[in-house]
Amino acid sequence: MSTPKLFIPGPIDVSQATYAAMSRPMIGHRGSEFEALYASTQPVLQQLAGTSRPVFLSTSSAWGVMEAALRNLTQKKVLTLCNGAFSDKWLDVAKKCGKEAEKIQMEWGQAIDPEQVRAKLAEGGFDTVTFIHNETSTGVMSDVSAIAKVVKSFPDVLLIVDCVSSFSAVPLAMDELGIDVLLAGVQKAMALPPGLTIFAISPAALERAKASKDRGYYFDFLEFEKNAASNNTPSTPAISLIFGLQDMLQTIAAEGLENRFARHRSNNKMIHDWAARHNFQHFAPEGFRSVSLSCFHTPTDFDQSAFIKTLKTKHNFLINGGYGKIKGITFRISNMGNETTSTMQELIDAMDDVLG
Amino acid sequence: MSTPKLFIPGPIDVSQATYAAMSRPMIGHRGSEFEALYASTQPVLQQLAGTSRPVFLSTSSAWGVMEAALRNLTQKKVLTLCNGAFSDKWLDVAKKCGKEAEKIQMEWGQAIDPEQVRAKLAEGGFDTVTFIHNETSTGVMSDVSAIAKVVKSFPDVLLIVDCVSSFSAVPLAMDELGIDVLLAGVQKAMALPPGLTIFAISPAALERAKASKDRGYYFDFLEFEKNAASNNTPSTPAISLIFGLQDMLQTIAAEGLENRFARHRSNNKMIHDWAARHNFQHFAPEGFRSVSLSCFHTPTDFDQSAFIKTLKTKHNFLINGGYGKIKGITFRISNMGNETTSTMQELIDAMDDVLG
Repeated sequence: MSTPKLFIPGPIDVSQATYAAMSRPMIGHRGSEFEALYASTQPVLQQLAGTSRPVFLSTSSAWGVMEAALRNLTQKKVLTLCNGAFSDKWLDVAKKCGKEAEKIQMEWGQAIDPEQVRAKLAEGGFDTVTFIHNETSTGVMSDVSAIAKVVKSFPDVLLIVDCVSSFSAVPLAMDELGIDVLLAGVQKAMALPPGLTIFAISPAALERAKASKDRGYYFDFLEFEKNAASNNTPSTPAISLIFGLQDMLQTIAAEGLENRFARHRSNNKMIHDWAARHNFQHFAPEGFRSVSLSCFHTPTDFDQSAFIKTLKTKHNFLINGGYGKIKGITFRISNMGNETTSTMQELIDAMDDVLG
Repeated sequence: MSTPKLFIPGPIDVSQATYAAMSRPMIGHRGSEFEALYASTQPVLQQLAGTSRPVFLSTSSAWGVMEAALRNLTQKKVLTLCNGAFSDKWLDVAKKCGKEAEKIQMEWGQAIDPEQVRAKLAEGGFDTVTFIHNETSTGVMSDVSAIAKVVKSFPDVLLIVDCVSSFSAVPLAMDELGIDVLLAGVQKAMALPPGLTIFAISPAALERAKASKDRGYYFDFLEFEKNAASNNTPSTPAISLIFGLQDMLQTIAAEGLENRFARHRSNNKMIHDWAARHNFQHFAPEGFRSVSLSCFHTPTDFDQSAFIKTLKTKHNFLINGGYGKIKGITFRISNMGNETTSTMQELIDAMDDVLG
């Protein structure tokens, strides 16, 4: 049996077109050819992020930039908004960076409550908030507008938003919402292999970073800003992945952003409809369900492990059996990236076949 | 004109076999397939590094791990051994991480003098030394055995060795020499696209890291150690690059390590012989010349810029016109990676043609 096609929530299936782009002959990164490559990525990345600021390319996975955001911005105390495996982890990461940190802990499966954020920030002492837009572990998409509005009502508090699994699946409005750091991996809805993280920072974030004493070099926001001015990166970049990114951004522009967002919504609805037919219950409440992946409760009388295994061995499709403390009691299906009505239908037909 | 073939000192020409391996269908990184991939890289990486310790895979370029080494190890003061653009920069990076740092500054083009290291360490107060084995900016390969011997005579001082442009081009003996951190990028002699750094740490480095309060998460040595035990990485890895790495390590094993080292020596000698014929003078002194790249003084009556440009436009080969403060007054030619007698001869014939 060949490698199964991935419908897990990242990394996901990568197209032959992307691999072909990634196989372009290697170039040096300190010349005009690389600068042109870098520059070519900016317009669509900016549109996707909703910013007029440069979008930086970090040779790392997303946790590198998540940690970087704390090292560059947190001088007093960070409030981590926690409602799943990845958002929860941000508290530990903050402490490992030697930062003072407190959290708001929602139950897994719930969205972040803006009013709790307001109450906590009103206690004072915070200068940074971390927020995950789309909790990949639970399939919950919190309301980024509402959270941003609350955080922005505290003028000295900067907002870090992880859009790892929402970027390019839904519209984002960094500048309009006043987000200070927006970051995303490329192995989710962007459908590239992992190894590259894109991020943008506000002028306020840049100012704050200037006063940070231990922000280091590799993830130094000032170094990214300085190098971006000449369409380059502080350290040797993942050139092949950037070739792939360039190609994907051309594909996204050709499809049209609104069409892309609509495609993610309709592919997502196909999974919702499939789940309704089989009476699978969403882990996320109505109104806060991710459009890039779906997370369902495992029914008590359902042999989830056998379902996933048979789907893989018989049909060569891989879905995910839950993450962290909800492993086994939930399962997740991705509809991110290049999927179409037709490829989603193939998955659905296969799942129906296994369910019998 | 197509993209020129790279004879710059990294990134270098990547083979079609590597790109084919990198284009294997994407897999998840939290399953047995990735664990098998990870495990498959270990034996040859350990041979190349000369260690029985696990060799970690960091999704970053080398500066990420260079900085990580300081964050994990330096609690008192670091001594940076400086003799070129990259080794010099390490002092600034240390300061940007909030570390106390002093340097030994050799003239660019000179090797690090072990006796100066001994004298400086004897002043006391240091707990870490940074050393670049092969200074890519100057083509100088310092004597890692001599440096390690000196540093190891100070029991509380840990030695960090950057083998970015020597790894897999020359034998390395991490365990035998008592190196505490050995790191290398993969876009140099390993001939992969950039985006992955391999490194190994000694038991003493692991112990030291445990007491570091701000080592963070993304580059936390303890996280790498813990995940390596189950053949995995702390954060989402650059899976496609690891497919490429696996393929390259198979190629290296098939060639045989000694044959590989001999091939680098003989390819390097071809460039030395070419330079002697044209009376180009080495920037590095005899006995300290890199075997993976060569750096030459630009003769005063020589239009280096025209030479490099014509070599590119007429023959589609790219060499490098010097780096940092010796840009223009030196030029560099790489012989790293997959090059053979025949491909080196093509370059030499082309250079001879341009020289007329």
